[in-house]
Amino acid sequence: MKRRVGIIGVGVSKFGRRDDVTVRELAWESIREALEDAGLTQKDIDLVVAGSTAYRGVELYPAPPVSEYSSLLGKTPLRVEAACATGSAAAFTAVNSVASGSAEVVLAVGFDKMTEVDTPTSLAIGGRGGNYQWEFHMYGTTFPSYYALYATRHMAVYGTTEEDMALASVKAHKYASMNEKAHLRNRVTVEDVLKSRLISWPIKLLDSSPISDGSAAVIFASEEKIRELKVDTPVWIEGIGFGSDTSSIARRGEWTSLRAAREAAASAYSLSGRTPSDVEYATVHDCFTIAEIMAYEDLGFAERGKGATLLREGQTERGGRVAVNLLGGLKAKGHPLGATGLAMLYEVTKQLREEAGPVQHQFKNYVALTHNVGGTGHYAYVTVLSR
Amino acid sequence: MKRRVGIIGVGVSKFGRRDDVTVRELAWESIREALEDAGLTQKDIDLVVAGSTAYRGVELYPAPPVSEYSSLLGKTPLRVEAACATGSAAAFTAVNSVASGSAEVVLAVGFDKMTEVDTPTSLAIGGRGGNYQWEFHMYGTTFPSYYALYATRHMAVYGTTEEDMALASVKAHKYASMNEKAHLRNRVTVEDVLKSRLISWPIKLLDSSPISDGSAAVIFASEEKIRELKVDTPVWIEGIGFGSDTSSIARRGEWTSLRAAREAAASAYSLSGRTPSDVEYATVHDCFTIAEIMAYEDLGFAERGKGATLLREGQTERGGRVAVNLLGGLKAKGHPLGATGLAMLYEVTKQLREEAGPVQHQFKNYVALTHNVGGTGHYAYVTVLSR
Repeated sequence: MKRRVGIIGVGVSKFGRRDDVTVRELAWESIREALEDAGLTQKDIDLVVAGSTAYRGVELYPAPPVSEYSSLLGKTPLRVEAACATGSAAAFTAVNSVASGSAEVVLAVGFDKMTEVDTPTSLAIGGRGGNYQWEFHMYGTTFPSYYALYATRHMAVYGTTEEDMALASVKAHKYASMNEKAHLRNRVTVEDVLKSRLISWPIKLLDSSPISDGSAAVIFASEEKIRELKVDTPVWIEGIGFGSDTSSIARRGEWTSLRAAREAAASAYSLSGRTPSDVEYATVHDCFTIAEIMAYEDLGFAERGKGATLLREGQTERGGRVAVNLLGGLKAKGHPLGATGLAMLYEVTKQLREEAGPVQHQFKNYVALTHNVGGTGHYAYVTVLSR
Repeated sequence: MKRRVGIIGVGVSKFGRRDDVTVRELAWESIREALEDAGLTQKDIDLVVAGSTAYRGVELYPAPPVSEYSSLLGKTPLRVEAACATGSAAAFTAVNSVASGSAEVVLAVGFDKMTEVDTPTSLAIGGRGGNYQWEFHMYGTTFPSYYALYATRHMAVYGTTEEDMALASVKAHKYASMNEKAHLRNRVTVEDVLKSRLISWPIKLLDSSPISDGSAAVIFASEEKIRELKVDTPVWIEGIGFGSDTSSIARRGEWTSLRAAREAAASAYSLSGRTPSDVEYATVHDCFTIAEIMAYEDLGFAERGKGATLLREGQTERGGRVAVNLLGGLKAKGHPLGATGLAMLYEVTKQLREEAGPVQHQFKNYVALTHNVGGTGHYAYVTVLSR
């Protein structure tokens, strides 16, 4: 990159069913917090990158009303979308805008009101994760059934069990119970997960992330601007790796790993000069519990097939070798598509700054990453950060 | 910008009702042409930025299938959207990705199959251009009626006439008749326009751009890469200005000009160090004929209120002071939303390289610009280019 870019402000809304707010008010919750966190006002922002799937909503063009409500009018020329990786796509776009010299201070805001989608639309839109023409129409495959295919293959090839997956849910709910902004704050046991309603075997209700409303905002600035502003603890972007893959899931060629995520990770490690063993904290895209196990492997935290071992041994708990999702993950914190990737950057920034309160992880070298997947591996972003 | 970025390849599909192709095939038409134009193959592309409104279509995530069909799998991590300015948003994103050092060679591809939208959906989605909650629901305002408000105000304040607007349509159809990829290739007279079916007074059918399918692709590269490739005639990006504005049209405060476009123009002139009188060729966003007249004024080609004079005097014809839309404009060439901004860059690149055949304009200093508006002024981009 032509110049270093750092994070100087982060904000996140309460996640959950947010009937109490419009999408504008929802976005403003995180924008306000990010501005306050950075000690900036709207006039200090050069460019706003909006991230929203906007698969369905009141406004056809959601960026302008959000921008106007937040007094950021005139600065929001685009919306980006990469399915569930939309927030990371917004971050990638924002970081490039700063590194290019097009802007000094850029706000990326991600938002979605997923609960505004009615059930038939949800089935037709939110529920599909592959190739609509060939797979959804012909076989009726939906999001959970795609991940069920990954889960059954992982079980068959590597001996991963339903109990292993349940451990990821137990961990997610435990940490979400300590996060007042999380969608689902109840604690669950392995038995609760195993007995929960079957969605698409082996995936059960408590293996699945909820349908959430929410927003997250991150303010990026150039190194020059960070010096000028005398920012106490900037969090530096060391590298953003991306990958993308076929929408015809039948062509993926393997069912135990996401190629896009592996490629994103390889690129992010290469750009940052870091290795998996350098990473002390990570957010991973646990839209289903099997996805967390695959993420450990795709990120190199565990060998292929050994992801569940990290859960069994507690290595991804607070204080473990690499702490993962200590705000509750997609599974329990919630998963408003446009917000998720930016909420991951919020989480990692708070951790690296040692502002994570009850779930603060102890760092030695202050290296962390975010792992955000779009669709069922259509898109992936891995971002390495440090302070 | 931290480094110079140039255009090294351009392609555009046939515009029109394209029942003969899927959206993947449609996108490939322009991608293939751009690759051939650049003398590159897919392996030379580092990143693909997809631009599509995808307001409705077969695929929920259109970027992966387009990428896969074009053998660009793994390189397409995001889709950008800015309503009718989507193509320019893709270009902005691509240029920043190169200037930042994230990539050396980036392909931006814009596509939309507008004719896949059925009529009720078209009314509910494609037909609205303002604030859905307040204006579409309460007053039933649609895209043409918003521009009709601009037209009537321009007529009342400046004396612009229906005949003036008709001249923009006559010009567009004249040049589209020479463009074999244009959607509407018939020539029309002022009388044809005035007698055509009333849509929303004073806007008639022949004042309106058609519903088109199409794609356009542009390949951007760093100056270093351009030297390495020994590109004959790179076209340089001198500056991209953007603007955005309220979605509540009632709050625009004026009805004879688009603030977002004026701000985008001011920024593009400032970044490039150019003035309106330097510009020898322009593409302007003539979604309705009044929009072309307002564009002349917003770009500084004419004083406020004097836009129609340029049409009456033929100053924006081939050979005029500033030639405008010599491929037929949105009005007659067609307006597939995601493609339009990139098709403008295609047009300007062909002109600056003197490859525009029968409509080649004669340059002295080889300075041109594109002007692309999203929604009814929700977004705007102005890009200054030179060779």
